[in-house]
Amino acid sequence: MAQNVPITVAYGDGIGPEIMNATLDIIKAAGARIDIEEIEVGEKVYLRGISAGIEPSAWDSLARTKVFLKAPITTPQGGGYKSLNVTVRTAFSLYANVRPCVAYYPFVETKHPNMDVVIVRENEEDLYSGIEYQQTPTVMESIKLISRPGSEKIIRYAFEYARSNNRKKVTCFVKDNIMKQSDGLFHKVFDEIAAEYPDIENETWIVDIGAAKLADTPENFDVVVMPNLYGDILSDVAAQIAGSVGMAGGANIGDGFAMFEAIHGSAPRRAGQNLANPSGLLMGAVMMLVHIGQPDVATKVHNAWLRTLEDGIHTYDIYKEGISKQKVGTKEFAEAVIARI
Amino acid sequence: MAQNVPITVAYGDGIGPEIMNATLDIIKAAGARIDIEEIEVGEKVYLRGISAGIEPSAWDSLARTKVFLKAPITTPQGGGYKSLNVTVRTAFSLYANVRPCVAYYPFVETKHPNMDVVIVRENEEDLYSGIEYQQTPTVMESIKLISRPGSEKIIRYAFEYARSNNRKKVTCFVKDNIMKQSDGLFHKVFDEIAAEYPDIENETWIVDIGAAKLADTPENFDVVVMPNLYGDILSDVAAQIAGSVGMAGGANIGDGFAMFEAIHGSAPRRAGQNLANPSGLLMGAVMMLVHIGQPDVATKVHNAWLRTLEDGIHTYDIYKEGISKQKVGTKEFAEAVIARI
Ligand SMILES: CC(C)[C@H](C(=O)O)[C@@H](O)C(=O)O
Ligand SMILES: CC(C)[C@H](C(=O)O)[C@@H](O)C(=O)O
Repeated sequence: MAQNVPITVAYGDGIGPEIMNATLDIIKAAGARIDIEEIEVGEKVYLRGISAGIEPSAWDSLARTKVFLKAPITTPQGGGYKSLNVTVRTAFSLYANVRPCVAYYPFVETKHPNMDVVIVRENEEDLYSGIEYQQTPTVMESIKLISRPGSEKIIRYAFEYARSNNRKKVTCFVKDNIMKQSDGLFHKVFDEIAAEYPDIENETWIVDIGAAKLADTPENFDVVVMPNLYGDILSDVAAQIAGSVGMAGGANIGDGFAMFEAIHGSAPRRAGQNLANPSGLLMGAVMMLVHIGQPDVATKVHNAWLRTLEDGIHTYDIYKEGISKQKVGTKEFAEAVIARI
Repeated sequence: MAQNVPITVAYGDGIGPEIMNATLDIIKAAGARIDIEEIEVGEKVYLRGISAGIEPSAWDSLARTKVFLKAPITTPQGGGYKSLNVTVRTAFSLYANVRPCVAYYPFVETKHPNMDVVIVRENEEDLYSGIEYQQTPTVMESIKLISRPGSEKIIRYAFEYARSNNRKKVTCFVKDNIMKQSDGLFHKVFDEIAAEYPDIENETWIVDIGAAKLADTPENFDVVVMPNLYGDILSDVAAQIAGSVGMAGGANIGDGFAMFEAIHGSAPRRAGQNLANPSGLLMGAVMMLVHIGQPDVATKVHNAWLRTLEDGIHTYDIYKEGISKQKVGTKEFAEAVIARI
């Protein structure tokens, strides 16, 4: 029998624990060969005065397992607290944030039935540098950084992803008519690397009109690569118009470390009510299973989940009269998926 | 008889001259009391080596008339050229960019029939500062600036606009979980000013999920105020999903100066083919007519334009079998509007 793979898990805040329980129940039922190391991160840790929201000891587990399944975190309001997502992404150089946004029409309501877009988001640079200054008493400055090595890594990742996933086109979004240096560099590197992949179509849009086309006719896009902040905004847009931000998972990929998550937040107002859709985190977990060499389990989970959606068993966020059959809570949804494994 | 109002006009590049001719023909036919001063800006001027794309003498006309109707401009690729839009916005402190994005269902096809959103975009700050550095041979830096006075002006403008246009809610988009200083300041000022307008509902979204909701259920938004770059991207998104970026006009408002434009670009590939939809620039002109104290003419133009749309006389970008009656070119569209004045 194959050995279990150790993974680090954080249950997160808000709806986090509910969707993590659902996700782990499902993947275990499908036969995931994993050993779970739980770490405590997020709100409780922040409020203990640890500005990064993660106990120093938790880093040991992350450094050991190199695989992190993370539920959404609540970062307390106010100065001094640093986003745990960003801390982990930076600490382990998780340069690629891969977010598939897929429509499941006719089983899940959407205005964009043929949508199947993968947002490949640069994940370390841009305005996420966290460098800000108070220039004068009334002027604040934030620093946007784009580097050639960073741009090369993410753009090459996007083309390699396209090639190995049989995708036909990689689109680049930039605003280089205004940011001629920073976005200009990203665009230039895109053109250079695109030339190395003659088998894959490429195009570049200014992000304003590109985002407009993506929101209106997403079926015309395939893989879309872009700097961090555009990717943050447009992956939420793409996931939501495909069906719900609650349906999309993301893989944060580095060299020898990966973090998997739902793309949505911790939705504190919905917490503890057995309401949340665990699908986003589950899709993150499916990507994780592929990553740790258990594609068989990943496929089992994915198929059982698809059948659940097809059977009209839907959480509130995707429930629609006439399409859905049964409105269920987080737990019942997980049970329905497990019953279909 | 009331005196004519002098206005400065630039025919622009690409499809610019065609949509400007159509727009001017229509507003003149409706009785606009204007004297036109034409200035030359854009591609030809850039290529003469003037990096701002505007002849020094053209500033005299702008400074005199203080009203500028501008067709889209092509900024040549490559270093050194500065966006004319941004130059004029900055030179005359046009702090508010107001972009109504309205669905004209059932006359114009849209997936969002009840959409009626006004994007109020801060127009002088943010990453449009134009300040960029090469930090190292491989790292580029762009500076994002947000100021208290700038935020106060645009946010107050948004609430005043809401009040005088009978709108119920002002929404703010920021990313202050990452940019705690810059977007944090914008958010703080929003809360302060919102408190002065108890008659108007207010809410703030993180721009990622806010943009997702806007793209999915725009009918839940009313006036939306945000920093420059988010406004650039999301006004294109909003206009496109309402029907077409070709349908939206924008007013760039300062103290004692205003510029009116289509929100879309110069579409060089469509130029000279009598294809372009002049509606965006026409809606800019309608806002201009109100601004120069000719609301009677504005209403005439707007109604004739609405009747043209309702009669199914559509340019290619909004033409849809089953909804449209006649596919027309730029000129024929203008003639149809004029016939309905
Ligand atoms: C929570 C927040 C810091 C994070 C981000 O901005 O990256 C989130 O929106 C995401 O997309 O993962
Ligand atoms: C042409 C470009 C500089 C401009 C902008 O970014 O503001 C345009 O996209 C707009 O929205 O008016």
